Amino acid sequence: MNSHNSLKVDLYELTMAAGYFQNKVEARATFELSCHTMPKNRSFLVACGLEQVVEYILNLRFSDEDVAFLKDLPVFRHAKGNFFDYLKNFKFSGDVWAMPEGEIFFAREPVLQVEAPIIEAQVLETCLLSVMNIESVVAAKAARVVAAASADGVARGVIDFGSRRAHGPEAGVLAARAAYAAGCIGTSNVYAGKEFGIPAYGTIAHSWVEAFDGEQEAFERYHAVFPENTVLLVDTYDTVGCVRKIVSMPLKAHLKGIRLDSGDLKVLSKKARGILDKAGLAHVKILASGNLNEYKIAGLVKARAPIDSFGVGTDMVTSRDCPALDLTYKLVQIQEKDGTVKYKSKTSPQKKTIPGRKQVFRHFDHKGMFRKDVIGLATEKAPEGARPLLRPVIRDGKLTEALPSLETVRQSVAEGLAKLPSSFKNIYKSKSVKPGYTSIILQLISELL
Amino acid sequence: MNSHNSLKVDLYELTMAAGYFQNKVEARATFELSCHTMPKNRSFLVACGLEQVVEYILNLRFSDEDVAFLKDLPVFRHAKGNFFDYLKNFKFSGDVWAMPEGEIFFAREPVLQVEAPIIEAQVLETCLLSVMNIESVVAAKAARVVAAASADGVARGVIDFGSRRAHGPEAGVLAARAAYAAGCIGTSNVYAGKEFGIPAYGTIAHSWVEAFDGEQEAFERYHAVFPENTVLLVDTYDTVGCVRKIVSMPLKAHLKGIRLDSGDLKVLSKKARGILDKAGLAHVKILASGNLNEYKIAGLVKARAPIDSFGVGTDMVTSRDCPALDLTYKLVQIQEKDGTVKYKSKTSPQKKTIPGRKQVFRHFDHKGMFRKDVIGLATEKAPEGARPLLRPVIRDGKLTEALPSLETVRQSVAEGLAKLPSSFKNIYKSKSVKPGYTSIILQLISELL
Repeated sequence: MNSHNSLKVDLYELTMAAGYFQNKVEARATFELSCHTMPKNRSFLVACGLEQVVEYILNLRFSDEDVAFLKDLPVFRHAKGNFFDYLKNFKFSGDVWAMPEGEIFFAREPVLQVEAPIIEAQVLETCLLSVMNIESVVAAKAARVVAAASADGVARGVIDFGSRRAHGPEAGVLAARAAYAAGCIGTSNVYAGKEFGIPAYGTIAHSWVEAFDGEQEAFERYHAVFPENTVLLVDTYDTVGCVRKIVSMPLKAHLKGIRLDSGDLKVLSKKARGILDKAGLAHVKILASGNLNEYKIAGLVKARAPIDSFGVGTDMVTSRDCPALDLTYKLVQIQEKDGTVKYKSKTSPQKKTIPGRKQVFRHFDHKGMFRKDVIGLATEKAPEGARPLLRPVIRDGKLTEALPSLETVRQSVAEGLAKLPSSFKNIYKSKSVKPGYTSIILQLISELL
Repeated sequence: MNSHNSLKVDLYELTMAAGYFQNKVEARATFELSCHTMPKNRSFLVACGLEQVVEYILNLRFSDEDVAFLKDLPVFRHAKGNFFDYLKNFKFSGDVWAMPEGEIFFAREPVLQVEAPIIEAQVLETCLLSVMNIESVVAAKAARVVAAASADGVARGVIDFGSRRAHGPEAGVLAARAAYAAGCIGTSNVYAGKEFGIPAYGTIAHSWVEAFDGEQEAFERYHAVFPENTVLLVDTYDTVGCVRKIVSMPLKAHLKGIRLDSGDLKVLSKKARGILDKAGLAHVKILASGNLNEYKIAGLVKARAPIDSFGVGTDMVTSRDCPALDLTYKLVQIQEKDGTVKYKSKTSPQKKTIPGRKQVFRHFDHKGMFRKDVIGLATEKAPEGARPLLRPVIRDGKLTEALPSLETVRQSVAEGLAKLPSSFKNIYKSKSVKPGYTSIILQLISELL
């Protein structure tokens, strides 16, 4: 997420920038990023991606090469040269407020707000939406998967195994980060380990087993190099036969685990556990993988499959049943040079937006559980006992304070989920939550819409 | 796609690499990348992403920083120092065969093959799968969208508007490339325009309209800077009222088009067309956008909605109904140092793999239309009239010849689709195609599985 992303935007952001520049529109604009409608199969979303967004905003520059490319595009034929000088000197000078990463949120709630000279606020649109989309959507999905894995109260780890099916190498890293924030215990992605300190996990591939003359040799060779970290893949040829083979091998005493990657995981895990236990290998853990998701995992947990941890890939990193949120980045107010604030909203049917820079006030019941969210203007005082969710992140182009560590973000997700009533966590039946509005917002809506 | 991606891999690739190194396994391995099972709602797939894959393979290096990070990981505690020296000097020295980009393919067919010292072949796995996954899955989806847009024989352009909902900025670029290869006429993504020469398109946002005192001022201000490229967004407040306003404005004579982004596109496009035509503005085109996909577009085309082009986002760039292919990268043979070739396959139920480096022979009927694919060993002679799909791309770590341009790839997709019988192109009902096998392959299967 660096200056290489300056052109990874929709062309209209840059044409509008030229238009504002040439028309001398210097007003300060406020844009809000929110999820317009809640996905049918989600009861909550998880705010994720702010760290990457902030890094992008603070470092956004247009290189000479970028500017030269733009200048040569036929569409900019009538754009004056000083616009390109402006781009060369571009540096974000505005303010950003956002929900901290890890916050639970719902449709229609602003998650992030940018207030800046209108050109600056506009050119951020695509990258902000795209990064918040992938990380928030994967975090919400991963939270469901993680919850399913321990639905009976027994702690079972979920590891992100999805990099190979993520939408390119960068998406694999962003998804790994989001999955860890949402409660996964680690990832197979090494770069995510290096960049974000996420524990990296791995076993062996079928190819390793096939590369040697038989499973026994393959396992012994691996164990020789990774004696404390041997998790053996047992389904290359015949799963049960392989587990029987393992319990007669010398390495068994030091074995960390076995991995089941295909077949009926319920039946196979029970058989494998039986064989291992009979051989006195209660310490050998069972890891299951292979096209898993929250529903399959919930089924295995319910059936008391003796699986200790799950490796989850495709469904989690692509958020397969909901691969994108309906995120929008909408203009909500404009402050003219003389200080006048004009509220802005779209009024077209089904696409109405609520004007004004807003705040989300979260209300809790007497037990500290989530009760409701009420949306007010940012200038309103927080109601007694309610917590305002949006906080200043960037002021005058500078970070207001260090962002929380990924471990802190992970803790926030866990705390936010713990405060959600269980009806929100039913993976089979989604719950629709509509935020309330303060009387000031309701008054604004009635005046403008 | 550069050396920054060296650690964007699954940890097990690097632990296996250390394992092979330390165990002195120096055999040459052949891995094949294919789609294990066909998605239920696709009748064909489109090979895409080879250019990025080749760039990755040719440039894969481990920096000192990468190596230092790996060396410090507890899992590598027993890996000997010369493995890390090996990584520092890593350079791919093997061979790659692949279907050219733009080729139509089906499940179980090898799309790409890597033959190299086993460590080198193994460490490529994640990046190869991830890049081929996103580009191939988007290309297949985009081909459906593009076909739907011109289903009645009238040419209507489809523009990729999906960057904001792609899985991060890189995914937006890869998706734009794949969508263009599959027949889109352009993209909103500026970087994809710069990097791949794809025509970049854009209009204006609702925020532009709202930033001024009324639509008329907003439109005139934009037109002043982009006189030949004015496409006005008409649904900010009242779509039909806005079109009526436009036909009385001086800029109307030079207007390129209007964009409808919400509401009933069939009704609104008919009303807008009527108003424009009545005002003598037959030259003003109508572009429609807003959560479109092949089904909605087919409906609009069938209903004779007078729409000239479509901007398509989320559903296309995330391939929403199938966000990932069941791609695998499997060991198929090993050549020992003495030249002996050993065929390799998994035999676990439902996950059987077919051994040996293979070739796909495409057969055509007397009209030149696709008839069937037959999979044989790579060493077999192509049957009379059949075309072998896999070609050498890299030999001894070097590109065999320049890769085709993206325009050539786009042409290949168009030609491949033209040769597919129409039953493959029914977007409502998918068709299942199973490749045949030559007698040599059948013999091999019966011996090993």
